[in-house]
Amino acid sequence: MAVITPVLERADANLPQSLDRLFDLVRIQSISTDPGFKAECRKAAEWLVAELRALDFDASLRETPGHPMVVGHHAGANPSAPHLLFYGHYDVQPVDPLDLWEAPPFEPALKEVEPGQKVITGRGTSDDKGQLMTFVEALRAYKETKGSLPCRITILFEGEEESGSPSLKPFLEANAAELKADYALICDTGMWDRETPAISAGLRGLVGEEVVVKAADRDLHSGLYGGAAANPIHILAGILAGLHDGTGRVTLENFYDGVEETPSDIRAMWSKLDRTAEKFLGEVGLSIPSGEKGRSVLELTWARPTAEVNGIVGGYTGEGFKTVIASQASAKVSFRLVGRQDPGKIRESFRAYVRARIPADCSVEFHPHGGSPAIQLPYDSALLNTAKAALSEEWPKPAIVIGMGGSIPIVGDFQKMLGMESLLVGFGLADDRIHSPNEKYELTSFHKGIRSWIRILDALAA
Amino acid sequence: MAVITPVLERADANLPQSLDRLFDLVRIQSISTDPGFKAECRKAAEWLVAELRALDFDASLRETPGHPMVVGHHAGANPSAPHLLFYGHYDVQPVDPLDLWEAPPFEPALKEVEPGQKVITGRGTSDDKGQLMTFVEALRAYKETKGSLPCRITILFEGEEESGSPSLKPFLEANAAELKADYALICDTGMWDRETPAISAGLRGLVGEEVVVKAADRDLHSGLYGGAAANPIHILAGILAGLHDGTGRVTLENFYDGVEETPSDIRAMWSKLDRTAEKFLGEVGLSIPSGEKGRSVLELTWARPTAEVNGIVGGYTGEGFKTVIASQASAKVSFRLVGRQDPGKIRESFRAYVRARIPADCSVEFHPHGGSPAIQLPYDSALLNTAKAALSEEWPKPAIVIGMGGSIPIVGDFQKMLGMESLLVGFGLADDRIHSPNEKYELTSFHKGIRSWIRILDALAA
Repeated sequence: MAVITPVLERADANLPQSLDRLFDLVRIQSISTDPGFKAECRKAAEWLVAELRALDFDASLRETPGHPMVVGHHAGANPSAPHLLFYGHYDVQPVDPLDLWEAPPFEPALKEVEPGQKVITGRGTSDDKGQLMTFVEALRAYKETKGSLPCRITILFEGEEESGSPSLKPFLEANAAELKADYALICDTGMWDRETPAISAGLRGLVGEEVVVKAADRDLHSGLYGGAAANPIHILAGILAGLHDGTGRVTLENFYDGVEETPSDIRAMWSKLDRTAEKFLGEVGLSIPSGEKGRSVLELTWARPTAEVNGIVGGYTGEGFKTVIASQASAKVSFRLVGRQDPGKIRESFRAYVRARIPADCSVEFHPHGGSPAIQLPYDSALLNTAKAALSEEWPKPAIVIGMGGSIPIVGDFQKMLGMESLLVGFGLADDRIHSPNEKYELTSFHKGIRSWIRILDALAA
Repeated sequence: MAVITPVLERADANLPQSLDRLFDLVRIQSISTDPGFKAECRKAAEWLVAELRALDFDASLRETPGHPMVVGHHAGANPSAPHLLFYGHYDVQPVDPLDLWEAPPFEPALKEVEPGQKVITGRGTSDDKGQLMTFVEALRAYKETKGSLPCRITILFEGEEESGSPSLKPFLEANAAELKADYALICDTGMWDRETPAISAGLRGLVGEEVVVKAADRDLHSGLYGGAAANPIHILAGILAGLHDGTGRVTLENFYDGVEETPSDIRAMWSKLDRTAEKFLGEVGLSIPSGEKGRSVLELTWARPTAEVNGIVGGYTGEGFKTVIASQASAKVSFRLVGRQDPGKIRESFRAYVRARIPADCSVEFHPHGGSPAIQLPYDSALLNTAKAALSEEWPKPAIVIGMGGSIPIVGDFQKMLGMESLLVGFGLADDRIHSPNEKYELTSFHKGIRSWIRILDALAA
C-alpha cells in the first residue's frame, strides 16, 4: 500500500464534513465589488482564519486598505521538503440578475443532476471557494492521518480577486520575506474536461477601463433637442463599434505590439484536442466564433488578445419608454492581453482612441480597473512535470498542459516580486457558470480535487 | 373697459388659490409609464373630475384598458358660439435619476430664482399639469365673473400621453359623436421665448422601438469566452453606430421617403429668429449641432426627421467591474418623423436593418412603442389668426407661428377621426427641464397663460 493511501481514504471518509464546511463558507456573501458586502467579506476571512488555526496553522487576518488578507504558516513534518505557498480567493462575483437563479445564490445545496452526477450549487462554489477548500481539506486529511503536513506550507487567501486585487501587490511587497516560498500553488483554474485534469501555462493579462461620455448638462427631451443635440449613447456606440475591424481585429494603435504567433507545434497539439467551435460555443447556445477570423477557438481564447465590452448603460432603461437624450452614457471595457503586450500602453492607446472620437462640446472620463500583463509559464519544468504525473494518477485521463483565457495577475506578481514559479491546477469545468447565475461545482471536482492535492503534496514533498 | 377686463382681474385675484390647486395636482405621482403608479394616475383623474364638477361641468372618469380618461361637458352661455374641445394630459414622466433633483419631485414649491422671477418646481409642473390648469383656471375666472362660460366646452384629459397614448384612438373612435367639436385647443407646447407667445403648426411624428439582442444562453466569463463568443453589446453598438452616416443622415432604407425640403420662405422666417446653434445648445452646455450637416438647429428640430437612442443597457453596470460577456443587450430607439413619412414603413425598415446585422447564432426581439405620423397644420387659418391676435394682446411681443420638434399624436387623431382643426398654444419655456430632473414652470407662464386663454376664449366666442 502506497504511503498516501490512508490519507486518500481519510479524505474519502471526511467528504460529508468537508462539504458542510464548504457550505458554511459559501453562505457568507463575500461580494468584493459591492461596498454593501464589506462586512461579509471580513466574515469570510475570519472564517478561514479559524479553519486554518484548527489545522495548527499560525494564521491571522491581515488588514489592507480594502478587504483583509488571510495568511497562515505551518512548519510541516519535513524541513528538507520544499516550502509551498498556496493562494486562493474568498471573494465572489455579484449575483445579479438574481431572478435567473434557480435557488438562492448563498444557500448552497447538493443536487443530483444526472444519475451519479452531483453538483454543489451556489455563488462561489467553483470560483473560488470550492477550489480553495480542496486544498484545505487535503491538508486536513494529511494532518488527521499523519499528525502533520508533509512540508512547510504558507497560505495566502485574498478577498479582492474579483475587484482587480488592488491591495495584493502592496501586501506582497510589504510581506515579501514572510510569503516567499519555493513554489506557489494556485487553485483558480479548470479541468480540460470531466475526465482530463489540466495545468495552465499561459494566462492572458487584463486591462479594464470604464468610459463615461458626457454631453448636455442635463437629460434632454428628444422632441425638443433631437437632431441637434449630441447624444452620448450615439458617440459611445460609435466608439465601441469601431474597436474591431471587419476581420475581428482590435483597431487600437499599436495594440498588437508584443503579440506573437503561437508556435506551430503548440497549435498542432491544441488542434488535436476535441474543442471545435461548435462544441465549445454550442455549450452556451452559440456556434460561430466572433473574434479574429481564421483562428481556432482555442487560439482565440488562449493566445490572442481581445477587447470586450462588459457593460453599458445610458438614458432611460426602465419599463416603457422615455424619449430622452441622456446627458451621459458609460461602458466598462476590458482587454485580454497576451505575450508582451504592455497594459499601460494599451490603456493609453485606448484613451487616445476614445478622446479622438469625442466631439469638441462633449467630454469623457476614464476610470481604470486592473492592469496586468500576460503570463507564460514554462511548458516543462520539474514542478509542472511532478504535478502532471500526480494528477494523471488520480483522474481517468492523463493531465494536459493548456493555455488560459482569463488572467490571474498574482502569477506575474509571484514571479516578479517573489521570484516564485507558480503551478496552476484547478478542477472547475467549462459549464460551472462562474460569474453567471446558477454557478455550480461538481462534487467530483471537489472530492477528486482534494485527492489530487494530497497526491501533488506527496510528490512535491518527496 | 373691455368686456373681459373683469374676467382678467378675477384671474389675477384668484392666482394664489389657482396655485394651491396646481400644487394639489402636482403632488399626485401620476407616472403613467410605470405600473407601480397606476393608483396615483387614477387619483389624478378623480381629482380633475371633481375640479370640473365644481365648475358645473357634467364630468366623469371614463375607464380604458390603461389609465382612465376624464371627460367633461359644459353648454356655455352662447349657443351660437363655436363648440371647443380642450385637451391636456395629467400623466407625467418618470423622475429618475432621483438624486439629481434639488427638491422632491412631487413636493411642488414656488421659488424665486431671480428678483421678480418665480418658478413653480416639481414633476409635471410644465408637462402638462401646469399647462392644463391654465385652461381650467381661465374657465373658473369666467364662471365666477359671468356666471357661465362664453361658449360650449368639452374637456378631454388623458393619462397615457407619456406612454404613447395606447387607449386614445379607441376612445376617440368609441366616443366620436360626444367629443366632436368645432375646434380643438391643445395646451402642451411652448413659448418662443419669455416674451413671445407661439402657436405650433408643424409637429414631428414618432416611432419607438425597443431592440433586444440575444447571444449566449447565459452570461459568460470574458476570460474563458472572450474573443470567441458573440458579445451582444458589440453587435448592438454596431447597429446603433450605423444608424447615421458621416453627414448625420439616417441610413435606413427609404427613411427619407415623404420628407420634403422646408419652403424657402419659411426657412427665411426662421432664419430671422435669434436661435443660433450657440444659443440654443448653449443653454444645455453644448455648442455644435449634431444632426444633418448644413442645416440650422431650427430646421433640424422642427422640420427634419431623426433617429435617437433614448436608452441602452447590457452586461454589468453596477459599481466596480465584472468581466462578463452579457447574454443580451437592449436599446430603446425613437424616430421623429416629418412630412409624409410612414411610421409603419419606418418601423419595418429599422427592423430589417437590425435583422441584417444579427449574426446567425444570435437573435433579436423588438418591442414597439408609439407610432404616429407628423402633422402639418395650416399657417393662416381663421382659428390660428384669431388666437394669434389674442395672444399678442397679452404678451410683450406679438405671437409667432413655429414648427415643433416633439410629437402630439392627438392632433392627427383629431384631424383624421373627428375632422377637427387643432390650435396648439402653450406657455412652456425651453429651460423648463421637462422629462428631466428639476422640472419647473414659470409663474408668469401660469399666470399669463390663464389670462391668454381668457382672451382666446373671448375672441373665439365672439
